[in-house]
Amino acid sequence: MELSPDRILQTGMGFWASKTLLTAVEMDVFTHLAKHPGDLNAVQERLGLHPRASRDFLDALVALGFLLRDDGIYKNTPETDVFLDKAKPSYIGGILEMCNHRLYGFWGSLTAAVRTGESQNESKGGHDPFTALYANPASLREFLRAMSGVSRGANMAIATKFPWEKYQTCADIGTAQGDLVTQIALTHRHLRGLGYDLPEVAPIFQEYITENGLSDRVGFQGGSFFTDDLPEADVLLFGHILHDWDLETKKMLLSKAYAALPTGGAVVVYDAIIDDTRSKNAFGLLMSLNMLIETPGGFDYTGADCIGWMQEAGFKDCRVEHLVGPDSMVIGIK
Amino acid sequence: MELSPDRILQTGMGFWASKTLLTAVEMDVFTHLAKHPGDLNAVQERLGLHPRASRDFLDALVALGFLLRDDGIYKNTPETDVFLDKAKPSYIGGILEMCNHRLYGFWGSLTAAVRTGESQNESKGGHDPFTALYANPASLREFLRAMSGVSRGANMAIATKFPWEKYQTCADIGTAQGDLVTQIALTHRHLRGLGYDLPEVAPIFQEYITENGLSDRVGFQGGSFFTDDLPEADVLLFGHILHDWDLETKKMLLSKAYAALPTGGAVVVYDAIIDDTRSKNAFGLLMSLNMLIETPGGFDYTGADCIGWMQEAGFKDCRVEHLVGPDSMVIGIK
Repeated sequence: MELSPDRILQTGMGFWASKTLLTAVEMDVFTHLAKHPGDLNAVQERLGLHPRASRDFLDALVALGFLLRDDGIYKNTPETDVFLDKAKPSYIGGILEMCNHRLYGFWGSLTAAVRTGESQNESKGGHDPFTALYANPASLREFLRAMSGVSRGANMAIATKFPWEKYQTCADIGTAQGDLVTQIALTHRHLRGLGYDLPEVAPIFQEYITENGLSDRVGFQGGSFFTDDLPEADVLLFGHILHDWDLETKKMLLSKAYAALPTGGAVVVYDAIIDDTRSKNAFGLLMSLNMLIETPGGFDYTGADCIGWMQEAGFKDCRVEHLVGPDSMVIGIK
Repeated sequence: MELSPDRILQTGMGFWASKTLLTAVEMDVFTHLAKHPGDLNAVQERLGLHPRASRDFLDALVALGFLLRDDGIYKNTPETDVFLDKAKPSYIGGILEMCNHRLYGFWGSLTAAVRTGESQNESKGGHDPFTALYANPASLREFLRAMSGVSRGANMAIATKFPWEKYQTCADIGTAQGDLVTQIALTHRHLRGLGYDLPEVAPIFQEYITENGLSDRVGFQGGSFFTDDLPEADVLLFGHILHDWDLETKKMLLSKAYAALPTGGAVVVYDAIIDDTRSKNAFGLLMSLNMLIETPGGFDYTGADCIGWMQEAGFKDCRVEHLVGPDSMVIGIK
């Protein structure tokens, strides 16, 4: 087999394709084209693209598979029409907006993070990274939408793969917009759910629950999982939460979950769980580097790591189940 | 077929993998491991990685396929050992060093470039982008090495795919380190070659030619293709040159080539030539966006575009031939 540098170059220069897609989301390309497919001049004018750039920009999106061009008319692909049109509830671009506004720049300092072990965002120096995010309603909303975007697929998988028929109530700890409890409650009409997050989240959560017609079965409880007990429910869920924190906090949260659950209750933790050999789930390992960049002590972990912490907290019958893409859930029973 | 947002998320967050590889090149991971495979502690200490980051960083490189880990010992893959070890002449990481130092940051301003049509580097405001690069010996050396890295595969393909047996001399216009004329001269011992570039390039070119044992057949001529005639030779080569410039300059260079060639002589232009439908060669289209970011007027182009300009300059028997990866050459005969 002849060796080729192709994969090296493709990955090393992969930020070109990445940033092109992020800019397209920022400029509402897909939201516009969902309603108004058009030729180069029409799209250029409507989106405020410069003539020097417009054709290469749109054709690059075609060649990357994110737009179609038929007889000179640009339009969305089936995927970008569903997932990147801001007017549709299926929009998942919030995570890409956050990548564009925040993470692309922070990741420019990866070398410093790898050398010093220090985060490279507003939390640099050990500050709580969520304080800055939650302080500003606009950044809070962007962050919460981003969390829905990156979690939607896993949330839908949990709604179908977990044995919900055995339980009556669930509480989603660090609920953000509430997409996880929403997907579960939409799928299982016997369940009552609770979203738990800092009080600032309440109005954004309530808006989302109302939009989804779930106000009669899904409520909100404000609180801090550092200073307060966790709410009581048959199932406690931590979706993309544990990886934000250091080992001590991870264990503290699992202990509080154990205390809040009834006997027979379940804790469900999901993240981009790293495979136990730490050699396959590249996204999980990169997500852990993202936690390095974004938080003072967070990191992602393997299923075996998580089962160990659960057992230490008292849980039994612990197991890992794959959800979708890089995400898996870890389940423990009290 | 169920629609999935996987490809959207993978591309939109693709800068994580990209920057991880760029940081690994910056930190000499592959150069070190080429000589010293080692366990986590040894590699961490030698490379100055922080303990919070080292394991995720190295395991991410494993999961991405750029390192191997056997029994806890990290080592290069066959590809990274050949192409990313700075001690080997086959090193092509210069382009990744340039991506890391320069382009990653500039691409952060892609949205501004797409809105304004203006470059986003030192050339912002219409300055010649090469003036800044060539002013500083360190940045010049990095740039020229980068050009060799991104061009090596195409250079080797030109050495074998072009009918060199018909010609005696060639001159490489904008030769940089001289890798193109080097690969050709190494493959065809009857040929004499010339590298043509700004005079500042001379010592770096001469060093490279000497390293490759070609000083008896390959020389250097300093000059500017804006103010001077091109050197005379049977074949004139433009490798990753035409895309740097605006349409007027592209045509001027092809006219000067026509003037300098003998009857029967050939011009060979290569770049990441875009397919004529502008819907397949994503890298070529992204390279054109890179020219938007890096130059006041440069852009990439299709084979049909280039053949049109060649015919306008007087060339005949024009044709496009694929080289390797995203690169093709366009050949015209005087």
